[in-house]
Amino acid sequence: MDFSSKLLENAVNEVSRLPGIGKRTALRLVLHLLKQPTEHTKYLTEALSVLRNEVKSCKKCHNISDTILCEICANPNRHTEVVCVVEDIRDVMAIENTAQFKGLYHVLGGKISPIEGIGPQNLQIESLVEKVRNGEVKELIFALSSTMEGDTTNFYIYKQIEKYNITTSTIARGISVGDELEYADEVTLGRSIVNRIPFENSLKA
Amino acid sequence: MDFSSKLLENAVNEVSRLPGIGKRTALRLVLHLLKQPTEHTKYLTEALSVLRNEVKSCKKCHNISDTILCEICANPNRHTEVVCVVEDIRDVMAIENTAQFKGLYHVLGGKISPIEGIGPQNLQIESLVEKVRNGEVKELIFALSSTMEGDTTNFYIYKQIEKYNITTSTIARGISVGDELEYADEVTLGRSIVNRIPFENSLKA
Repeated sequence: MDFSSKLLENAVNEVSRLPGIGKRTALRLVLHLLKQPTEHTKYLTEALSVLRNEVKSCKKCHNISDTILCEICANPNRHTEVVCVVEDIRDVMAIENTAQFKGLYHVLGGKISPIEGIGPQNLQIESLVEKVRNGEVKELIFALSSTMEGDTTNFYIYKQIEKYNITTSTIARGISVGDELEYADEVTLGRSIVNRIPFENSLKA
Repeated sequence: MDFSSKLLENAVNEVSRLPGIGKRTALRLVLHLLKQPTEHTKYLTEALSVLRNEVKSCKKCHNISDTILCEICANPNRHTEVVCVVEDIRDVMAIENTAQFKGLYHVLGGKISPIEGIGPQNLQIESLVEKVRNGEVKELIFALSSTMEGDTTNFYIYKQIEKYNITTSTIARGISVGDELEYADEVTLGRSIVNRIPFENSLKA
């Protein structure tokens, strides 16, 4: 693309470095900002700068937080001995939305992925093992995505903590509520038969 | 969405005000920035702020420019008497890419659209009529989108300038190069028959 303005070109290049945003979309977004009042751009850039410079991660669960201890970890009504292992804040938000979990979280910050160069040392795994070693955790629930990377990460952590003899579980894999059986993939369907649950349990929640 | 951080919530809200970006996409973009080095956010926000505060519009064609007169208007090799009327900078870039036009542009900054509350007074129409009145323009080429708004804008401008007796034309509507005839819509196909061109012309460009 040939730009008539270096400033415009620079802004488009920076915006197009964001994931899933190409040059054309970036140009559309930037031109939109130019048509809006100056304050719009000011609020946007300030919100991003302040977030990037001031946001903290909770010292206990490593979730994104404005305070040293996040709201969930600081809540005295949560069961501190049940810890749900998740990848990032979006998973915390998704599980919180279900209102089915009253324990604490441990945010890894990603999954082990050799292709992307993410190893165990890049994730908050050591601090999780430390919690288990200290006896702070009685039950660990793995709630990572059901992918190769998620399974690898689960297994890696499991191997580190199995000697401490705590309860470990993983969220159920099975047919989504509302799904037609005929469209389910065979691995999911197979697992959902192997790990079938007592019928009366399916009446809850 | 329930956010664990006000700073995060604020940033997501600001990003999701951009067109075509919802809350989930905004969250994904913001979390991406948090995973990147701080400089990434700094460069992005600076590029946007500088652009918004310092970019100018060319005093002659109203295109986005870093200087008072844009590169195209300042180029002595362009034919100053042929002016192509376009909606915004993207159209200028698209036409410049064809390398088929050697005249100048006039950027309206939008199209007349009562639904969006954009009337003639919100666009750079008066300055275009002024150029025609002064005798600066010998030929005007309308290159707006072939939509209701584009046609309305063309017609409005045409009515303002028809008394000055200059050559006016609109870019050809017809079958796209490479298109199968059977998939062309009937209006386009009909117009392409009415406005057929001498065969030897089709061999050029």
